[in-house]
Amino acid sequence: MPQEEGTQKDTVTRSNEIARMVGGDIARRAANRTPQKLAFIAPEQDEELTFEAFNRRVNRAAHAFQEEGLESGDRLAIVGGNSLQFLTAYFGALKTGIVFTPINPEITSEDIGYELDHSEADALLVDDVLYPKVEPLVADRDIDVLATITVGDEDSPVPSFDEVIDGQSPTEPAVEIHDEDLAQIMYTSGTTSRPKGVLLSHKAITTGSLNVSASGDLTRNDVTSCVMPLFHCAQLTMVKGAMHVSATTVVRRSFDPDGFLEDVEQRDLTWSFMLPAMYNGLLARPDIEDRDLSSLRYCLYAMAPIGNETLERAIETFDADFALGSGQTEAYPPTCIYHPEWQLEKEGNYWGHAAANTDIAIMDDDGTLLDRGEVGEIVYRGPNVMDGYLKNEEATEEAFAHGWFHSGDMGFFDEDGLLKFVDRKKDIIKSGGENVSTQKVESTLLDHPAVEELAVVGIPHERWGEAVTAFVIPAEGADADTEDIREYASEHLAGFESPKAVEFVEELPKTATGKIQKFQLAEHEADYYQEQVDD
Amino acid sequence: MPQEEGTQKDTVTRSNEIARMVGGDIARRAANRTPQKLAFIAPEQDEELTFEAFNRRVNRAAHAFQEEGLESGDRLAIVGGNSLQFLTAYFGALKTGIVFTPINPEITSEDIGYELDHSEADALLVDDVLYPKVEPLVADRDIDVLATITVGDEDSPVPSFDEVIDGQSPTEPAVEIHDEDLAQIMYTSGTTSRPKGVLLSHKAITTGSLNVSASGDLTRNDVTSCVMPLFHCAQLTMVKGAMHVSATTVVRRSFDPDGFLEDVEQRDLTWSFMLPAMYNGLLARPDIEDRDLSSLRYCLYAMAPIGNETLERAIETFDADFALGSGQTEAYPPTCIYHPEWQLEKEGNYWGHAAANTDIAIMDDDGTLLDRGEVGEIVYRGPNVMDGYLKNEEATEEAFAHGWFHSGDMGFFDEDGLLKFVDRKKDIIKSGGENVSTQKVESTLLDHPAVEELAVVGIPHERWGEAVTAFVIPAEGADADTEDIREYASEHLAGFESPKAVEFVEELPKTATGKIQKFQLAEHEADYYQEQVDD
Repeated sequence: MPQEEGTQKDTVTRSNEIARMVGGDIARRAANRTPQKLAFIAPEQDEELTFEAFNRRVNRAAHAFQEEGLESGDRLAIVGGNSLQFLTAYFGALKTGIVFTPINPEITSEDIGYELDHSEADALLVDDVLYPKVEPLVADRDIDVLATITVGDEDSPVPSFDEVIDGQSPTEPAVEIHDEDLAQIMYTSGTTSRPKGVLLSHKAITTGSLNVSASGDLTRNDVTSCVMPLFHCAQLTMVKGAMHVSATTVVRRSFDPDGFLEDVEQRDLTWSFMLPAMYNGLLARPDIEDRDLSSLRYCLYAMAPIGNETLERAIETFDADFALGSGQTEAYPPTCIYHPEWQLEKEGNYWGHAAANTDIAIMDDDGTLLDRGEVGEIVYRGPNVMDGYLKNEEATEEAFAHGWFHSGDMGFFDEDGLLKFVDRKKDIIKSGGENVSTQKVESTLLDHPAVEELAVVGIPHERWGEAVTAFVIPAEGADADTEDIREYASEHLAGFESPKAVEFVEELPKTATGKIQKFQLAEHEADYYQEQVDD
Repeated sequence: MPQEEGTQKDTVTRSNEIARMVGGDIARRAANRTPQKLAFIAPEQDEELTFEAFNRRVNRAAHAFQEEGLESGDRLAIVGGNSLQFLTAYFGALKTGIVFTPINPEITSEDIGYELDHSEADALLVDDVLYPKVEPLVADRDIDVLATITVGDEDSPVPSFDEVIDGQSPTEPAVEIHDEDLAQIMYTSGTTSRPKGVLLSHKAITTGSLNVSASGDLTRNDVTSCVMPLFHCAQLTMVKGAMHVSATTVVRRSFDPDGFLEDVEQRDLTWSFMLPAMYNGLLARPDIEDRDLSSLRYCLYAMAPIGNETLERAIETFDADFALGSGQTEAYPPTCIYHPEWQLEKEGNYWGHAAANTDIAIMDDDGTLLDRGEVGEIVYRGPNVMDGYLKNEEATEEAFAHGWFHSGDMGFFDEDGLLKFVDRKKDIIKSGGENVSTQKVESTLLDHPAVEELAVVGIPHERWGEAVTAFVIPAEGADADTEDIREYASEHLAGFESPKAVEFVEELPKTATGKIQKFQLAEHEADYYQEQVDD
């Protein structure tokens, strides 16, 4: 039967204002839903904010940004660790259509400069303690340092964030924002040495964070942790996930075992999100059996698996459900959850089930979707998928080949329909939640006169997930030792990028045509850090 | 600073296929996530379907619809009660962009005809037992009866739904569908006698149903009920809510106390959604204390409050959390949940807190948003809000005045931030989950010679929520009694529209200008049905 002209569209009459799905609404809705409930507790900042107070502060930030001349589509970069101000600025940007561009403060000044240039940052917020690091970068760039976030007692010529937003109106800013508008640019490293700017829409960040309650067992009665870095997509989505359901979040600058236990005992923390090494660190404390951990009920971990033996001890000690969450900046997390009921049932790096708003499939190199049991590249679809890479059409096209987002991770679905990670397709190491290009590390180390040839691989490590590890054939006659090379690397690379170990070897495994077989090396040395611990 | 040309849009390169948020994906994602898990159990149909089997069947239906010539934007009407075929057809339509148009089978033939005409239905599915009712309607219309759904043993010249989809391909149909495309037309009555066609986009039905897990405590481990009618938005959203998280749903044709208890005892039902009267009916059973209700943990009720005394008994007997869910077709449910932790804390018709994806505010007649404590119209925003009313610009404009959707319900937020329903703004009665226009009932009854003047109001009733109740000044010399008038009404109106009681009165409360004060009547007679029960 014939299609009526315009049947689908001519009937749509509601305004965008009514029916949109944009990030800033998460803060406003939580404030309207539960104005007097505690949204954030920041023990180190000695501050507690209700959802209403937080939203009013967010609105003040929004008006301050507008007063500084920032408009929808402009980019606001931030170089800072966790703070209430970070979150305030984030939602202030989302509410005004300003594109929030967090920069990892641990990367080198050169890389910060690159990300400022590449994102065409219009304005910058920076922690006061990091101001000296960014000052030389902004001096010769057309970037306005809007404010410093006071977390230390560093003097700077720039007013503090609190001063800048003080006195602004707490009313909702009126800005037209659409679901598909750009909300965030987040940088992530690829196989080449330059990080890529991941473009995330309001729809992507909203539907990604809705996965937290739908698939991560988070409810309105939870008190959640925020000890992972907010400049990373994982912690940022967890905070939004909590706000969707009006759960409270305890914000700390970073993980600190004493602080975490204090939050559990004194603030009844129920739902935590941390790295395996952090849970391990707590388990290793002599006082852990004497602490009152009864409030804790759900412990999400990420970036790396926890061995079943340790896990069993953790479940018993914390008397909580454990679950592994996965995701990546390009497919706004969480994309899969390895649910508590499956933990201990399997061995290895299981990622579990797809979250509510996410499709996961396995694809071969020709773009054919594979059946259960077959190993291939893990590919994603879903409203939480990025728009593309900023100013990088080639990488974007490659990432979206065959109509799916290509993760660069290899895996398969097992007989129970659970996703298992097998390997990384490309030369990327996931170190401390950040992508590290092995090519970048290798080219840096090759500049050292004692290095003749080398291979950099990621090896399982309880703190880093994968530890950057360099196997080096030393140059003939060179008198440098491995420690000299590590030191050299740490001068030229960020902490998470630097090799955690440098090993001298006589030869590297190669193919007949002379290509280094990194996969063989990684497999052979899989227990490298495990053995060191046992020693 | 100047806005770069096209900053927001030119970077978007992912395809719609990758990042869409459309209804049919809910079925596909659940099948990919948990292929072997039970999606639906239909005890009366003696059938169980895994998520994979269901999705394959949905795809077969999609291909069958396409083979019949239906295209994206065409309207598929369905006149039927709950069945696996209803759900199969629903998702089959969603996957092909065909607009699903469920029609309440209890309304009069004339009204069914009106909805078929008004929606310009291209094709129809009908329960075999209802075929005789629709046959005369389709005879003189250009509507193709695609299939009958076999739920009885009624003969019809039309092939069965199962036959029609049998042999079709179980593969995913390839149809381009966008978030904002029309997914459903659902009819709801307004103050005038003709029902209005509510236009719901894929985004609206998806974000509405995501509210079920985010705010209705539904998880992947639940087994949920489906005893409320699927042609109504409430049950339809609950089924999608369950599928988002791969929870199992037990589908019954309608509520049947023995069947429900069987589902709890034999199928470990954990999460139910029913009317207060249904829970009350169960409570009143002599065998209820001897039944094993231990699986049940969360009981959602809707349409009307449950008195605290009954509620206390229900919570104890079922040993479960109770919560009230609200919503309406125009703001795809659930829009608010009166959570378990608040039950028994308050008295009266509380609707509780806004769900995750919904804004709720209180507005006065001039469009000003009111403060806490002030009574006004309940208005909504959110991605779950409808697009408008089909072919009714005037009603659409009125509904979206001042940039919010106007519910027609009056209420306020109390000191704890909880929404309390106060009154209906317009002459609409919500009877058994359906809107009833008092004007329609009044004009029907006025045709009866014994009726001189009357007022029809809604009065609290445990089965109907609000019972349609007629207060009639009899015509002088008429010898008909109230029972004659009730009978006359039920011949001309659907069951839910007919007065549950007709009372003869000598006069009606009126204003000085002679307008009947229905509000006063409703308030004065609030205990009308309560008193009857006590008698």
